[in-house]
Amino acid sequence: MTRPSSVPPPVTAVLDASSRWLPARLGEVEELLRKAVAGHGELLGADAGATLDAGGKRLRPMLVLLCAGPERDGEAVRAAAAIELVHMATLVHDDVLDDAPLRRGLPTVAATSGRERAVATGDLLFSRAFALLADAGDARSVALLADASVALARGELAQRRDAFDLGIDEERYLHRCRLKTARLFECACLLGREEERLRDFGAGIGLAFQLLDDVLDVSGPPERTGKARGTDLLDGTVTLPLIEAAKSDPSVREVDLRSLDAPSAEALCDRIAATGALERVRARAIEMVANAKSALGQAQFDPEQRHLLALVADGVVQRYS
Amino acid sequence: MTRPSSVPPPVTAVLDASSRWLPARLGEVEELLRKAVAGHGELLGADAGATLDAGGKRLRPMLVLLCAGPERDGEAVRAAAAIELVHMATLVHDDVLDDAPLRRGLPTVAATSGRERAVATGDLLFSRAFALLADAGDARSVALLADASVALARGELAQRRDAFDLGIDEERYLHRCRLKTARLFECACLLGREEERLRDFGAGIGLAFQLLDDVLDVSGPPERTGKARGTDLLDGTVTLPLIEAAKSDPSVREVDLRSLDAPSAEALCDRIAATGALERVRARAIEMVANAKSALGQAQFDPEQRHLLALVADGVVQRYS
Repeated sequence: MTRPSSVPPPVTAVLDASSRWLPARLGEVEELLRKAVAGHGELLGADAGATLDAGGKRLRPMLVLLCAGPERDGEAVRAAAAIELVHMATLVHDDVLDDAPLRRGLPTVAATSGRERAVATGDLLFSRAFALLADAGDARSVALLADASVALARGELAQRRDAFDLGIDEERYLHRCRLKTARLFECACLLGREEERLRDFGAGIGLAFQLLDDVLDVSGPPERTGKARGTDLLDGTVTLPLIEAAKSDPSVREVDLRSLDAPSAEALCDRIAATGALERVRARAIEMVANAKSALGQAQFDPEQRHLLALVADGVVQRYS
Repeated sequence: MTRPSSVPPPVTAVLDASSRWLPARLGEVEELLRKAVAGHGELLGADAGATLDAGGKRLRPMLVLLCAGPERDGEAVRAAAAIELVHMATLVHDDVLDDAPLRRGLPTVAATSGRERAVATGDLLFSRAFALLADAGDARSVALLADASVALARGELAQRRDAFDLGIDEERYLHRCRLKTARLFECACLLGREEERLRDFGAGIGLAFQLLDDVLDVSGPPERTGKARGTDLLDGTVTLPLIEAAKSDPSVREVDLRSLDAPSAEALCDRIAATGALERVRARAIEMVANAKSALGQAQFDPEQRHLLALVADGVVQRYS
């Protein structure tokens, strides 16, 4: 379970549908991100700049901006940049943990500059996120983002604890995904707008996003995902496709994850796929997105905003169809 | 240049002189620190608890409380706990970077639980610090602490960049110490009280603290410092004693830090000491503390507070005399 970092291409549909304001606002976020990592001299420019350039389609900032709506500008842009800085920080630290050479097809900070610089770069991005919100005197947003960051770190710790343990059940897996992925999506929505129902929407699409990412790790193809099939399995990460497959194929339960190498991890992917587990997990994710959209229906939104958020939700599913 | 983590024993003088209120307030900080790392389940309890137990004498929290004075309670205690959480987070991350087996004579999180858990544990401590301040709606304090955290990470990056480079001059060294150590001391004072003159006081004693810590790395003795002499030199960290020694002993300038091993690092310590560099650096630090105390004299303080802060400043020097 690597933390999802790419965004569904269908999110371009969101940009088209909101061309009146959203693309310009995302441009402001980008500018603020540049400023946030600039002016810190030394190595940060290079490492953090590379992280920034490596991109990602800014899904979390988009959620902040969409939930905030077209009327709210400065504070929403700032919150959007801050949440992306936290996301970037966790990616940089994840790559230290995973010894990952590549992310999104580009060398990671850990690979080009060493673990030492990567840990410090992550810390810096993290600190800048809070500085950005706090400079604006926005304690509610700081509290939201700090709590989500606590969840992220707990999720990371839970993943390390559970590594290589095939006794991990679905409930434990979902708990970890909530901490590691869903909470930041939820936070993005609440940073945009104080509306409790948005929690269910954000958490729902975040969870679906993680489930589908975990399906991709098994299904590939590598040309599309940019990484070898079974990368998570090699790291010892027990994901839902594996848990599901083990239910219907007893031989999967007997696998010793610690003994996997790249070819046997690929073979395990084939066995997981043969059980129909991928379809079952996809169906779960689609159901989660549907529930998220219905939670959205109960929130007090103008129809355009609701439509745009529903498009984002659909985008999460569509990249896998 | 390891980040100083221990506190001068003479600070007990501060506790004695303020027994009416300070020890009880420090007890509240300790309680809040326990709460901040508890209730996050999983591995954090063990790792962060161990970091907490490893102690340190809470110098930064003490500065917050002393600057705040006896009248201000809840917010000062919270800020004191938050700054210590950030300090703890940086220590945990430092130990990942340095592959350090021991800190304060106890195994590091990195050593007992692995780098992975140590990175995540540091992230968690960091996030909890901001959550603690933000939950109280205190955006000014968040901004101060976030800016200081940015400085810490920049200092760490600067140290990595400068490693093994004997071309580093005093100015560059002092710049790095300001970022890596002095800014957090400064922040502690400003968290306690909004008073610009406290910047000079906090920064001055922080800088002196780092200089004297760097002297200790060369002078030892190990029974007192808990680490071998020349540990910083082995890490490639160019500190002021080395820079000073190179001025008067050309052979020191020729040393290749990358080729050092433990015995040759100890021998280099002897050569540095033979130049009188340690006395010169100590004198600089003592001068910095004197300047810090005179900055304090210009601040609007009641005499008891000023007296207690001066005792802290003296304590920084006295541990080396």
